[in-house]
Amino acid sequence: MNDFNEETLEVAVIGLGSMGMGVARSLLRSGITTRGFDLNPEALDEFAKAGGDVASDLADTVRTCRVVILMLVNAEQCDSVLFGEGGMAEAIPQGSVVLLGSTTSASYAKALDRKLQAHGLKMIDAPVSGGAVKASVGELSIMASGEPAAFDICGPVFEAIAAKIYPVGDEVGAGETVKMINQLLAGVHIASAAEAMALGMKAGLDPDMVFEIISNSAGSSWMFQNRVPHILQGDYSPKSMVDIFVKDLGIVLDAGKEMKFPLPIAASAHQQFLSASAAGYGKEDDAAVIKVYPGIELPKKQ
Amino acid sequence: MNDFNEETLEVAVIGLGSMGMGVARSLLRSGITTRGFDLNPEALDEFAKAGGDVASDLADTVRTCRVVILMLVNAEQCDSVLFGEGGMAEAIPQGSVVLLGSTTSASYAKALDRKLQAHGLKMIDAPVSGGAVKASVGELSIMASGEPAAFDICGPVFEAIAAKIYPVGDEVGAGETVKMINQLLAGVHIASAAEAMALGMKAGLDPDMVFEIISNSAGSSWMFQNRVPHILQGDYSPKSMVDIFVKDLGIVLDAGKEMKFPLPIAASAHQQFLSASAAGYGKEDDAAVIKVYPGIELPKKQ
Repeated sequence: MNDFNEETLEVAVIGLGSMGMGVARSLLRSGITTRGFDLNPEALDEFAKAGGDVASDLADTVRTCRVVILMLVNAEQCDSVLFGEGGMAEAIPQGSVVLLGSTTSASYAKALDRKLQAHGLKMIDAPVSGGAVKASVGELSIMASGEPAAFDICGPVFEAIAAKIYPVGDEVGAGETVKMINQLLAGVHIASAAEAMALGMKAGLDPDMVFEIISNSAGSSWMFQNRVPHILQGDYSPKSMVDIFVKDLGIVLDAGKEMKFPLPIAASAHQQFLSASAAGYGKEDDAAVIKVYPGIELPKKQ
Repeated sequence: MNDFNEETLEVAVIGLGSMGMGVARSLLRSGITTRGFDLNPEALDEFAKAGGDVASDLADTVRTCRVVILMLVNAEQCDSVLFGEGGMAEAIPQGSVVLLGSTTSASYAKALDRKLQAHGLKMIDAPVSGGAVKASVGELSIMASGEPAAFDICGPVFEAIAAKIYPVGDEVGAGETVKMINQLLAGVHIASAAEAMALGMKAGLDPDMVFEIISNSAGSSWMFQNRVPHILQGDYSPKSMVDIFVKDLGIVLDAGKEMKFPLPIAASAHQQFLSASAAGYGKEDDAAVIKVYPGIELPKKQ
């Protein structure tokens, strides 16, 4: 049964959260036969309505797929869908490619590559950047590493889901390492945007004015411009959650420990996200890290 | 003698470093009679060659000036030129405006305003952003606060030196407070850019590649794009020095202490600039903060 159709590319997306759903929709829009799996029945409904194929279990989802994209929250989930009870590693056709779209550590990516090789599978670590909106319009940035033969197989997939592919090396793990560098900065920039806006409010400045001036000054960052509006609107509905940066800065700091390398600023930002999560804001938008700064009155939801 | 010409606006620039010289040149280009003062004779020469008027001492520099711009490194220097031995506070014509272009604390700006009022002088705190290049072409961003009558007097000056004026309030101190928020972010972004690039090098990634990818990703910041090229070129000739951020993040943290407000990320970045200064890099470009990350080989000067 482990067989794929040589004529038509079939792709599976495992994990239909906001990022996975966007990727799946982009594939469908490109005319690629796309199968999907998620534990959430509502996500499966949405996917089916968009024209996706829903199978009864993980193995049936991937049985004819040349490319299997993992869009899961973390390494544990990836291990579980591949090698756990009812896992799909055995069902994926020999020679197919597992595309690791999740942000994990580079060392996990390398270990996963070895396990997949033992199953006759190729792997590309391809963490994505851009958020749910870019995912839904097929304009993600992807930092990908792996062997050239695997890249060849994934060509049409990348074309469907990404505006920009950065091929960062032939060796699995490099993609995750670059993503980690990005997440170090992204996390520090969100936490320091919150710290700066909080200080401005404490000092009695109008936060809208501060936002406008800093956006046009040397203190600006991509994250400052993207996240501070959530604070100004008092809108902490999760575009990306506090707990994602608890995880991603955790990956950064674990890598630092592994390499014996000091990362004091990343560590300090991580503590702020941990504080926010401990205070009960883990599932809110990551801009809610500003709520750990005490004694200020934040803008209310309009 | 304390008198100004009602017909023609005369302006003094005190401090002809890279920022002050740029401001002075922009004033001269606009046809404004500009006097200058600096302790460095080479700076005075350059200023005179550009068409500026050089007087024999501070008092003679300002005696006919309607606007006196302070472009000095810190509050101590401002106090010294105004109220120290041979200081100029007495010599500035009544009703003239002192424009505080330096980055100081808001509480210093407020105290200075009170002292200048006692001398019959107005004040605007007008810290600038944009760096030496923008200063020299008259395109600074200025965050200015003070009474409207003072703004009216300074109109032609702002027009000559700035691309954008942000009037942040009628009360002296607000300009410095906004600048402080900007400097918190600018300092954290430089230090975290260094930390991220250092981690990438430690992990064996090509730093040019990392720079290109992050510049186009959510981890980017104004400072990342501006300062990382110095690291890639191994060029630490000071565009802006490490010790400037030792000072500016120091101002941020002092303000936090005054307001009893925690700023853990700014504090962590400040420690990195202090480490760099302690290691002997205080007068190098602020991108030299990367030199405190041990065990990596930085790109050499080409």
